[in-house]
Amino acid sequence: MTTTHPLATDLADACLCEAPVGAIDPTRAAEVAKTFKALADPARVRLLSIIASAPGGDACVCDLTEPVGLSQPTVSHHMKILADAGLVTRRQQGRWAHFAVAPGARELLGASADAVLGRR
Amino acid sequence: MTTTHPLATDLADACLCEAPVGAIDPTRAAEVAKTFKALADPARVRLLSIIASAPGGDACVCDLTEPVGLSQPTVSHHMKILADAGLVTRRQQGRWAHFAVAPGARELLGASADAVLGRR
Repeated sequence: MTTTHPLATDLADACLCEAPVGAIDPTRAAEVAKTFKALADPARVRLLSIIASAPGGDACVCDLTEPVGLSQPTVSHHMKILADAGLVTRRQQGRWAHFAVAPGARELLGASADAVLGRR
Repeated sequence: MTTTHPLATDLADACLCEAPVGAIDPTRAAEVAKTFKALADPARVRLLSIIASAPGGDACVCDLTEPVGLSQPTVSHHMKILADAGLVTRRQQGRWAHFAVAPGARELLGASADAVLGRR
């Protein structure tokens, strides 16, 4: 009579316990999540798109409130998150802040996608 | 003596009031934000990366809990968000759910970036 040792069955069902080779490390995962989180809000998606579509590629914060229907403090809060994520650049002109899409914004999103999905 | 009509000054400082041509519409902005929100969490970034790196491109949910150090209900919750966003596919094999990167995941992220930044 053959019997299977209980431990052998347990091992066959066991988890891998470690991430496979090539999977993202926790530190990089946190960076990538921060980038995507910056665009995880419909208002921020709209704000970045409005800036990207603005004549001259530059928009005054004073021109951003009306199209999205939000107060200026709220818009400024969203713009800070986009700037901290490296998706927009900010310059002061007189009393108003102006924003442009950061030169590396597209590459940042592409590299973030590659970091998650690999380059296959 | 020349005077400037107050209204003229107001108009010069006035907001655009409308999003520029080519900016994303609110409905599409909500879709794009949902896609990015699925990857706005470090645990989901790691889970998707582990699946993308798994031998055969397929991972049992039972193999996902240990590498990320989360309970199976929590992992299942995260996997539902990734599946709802169209980033992974799910199939049942015996008692376990298995996940693979959705065939269009990379294109989905690329199209979402294009929707925000335009195709310039």
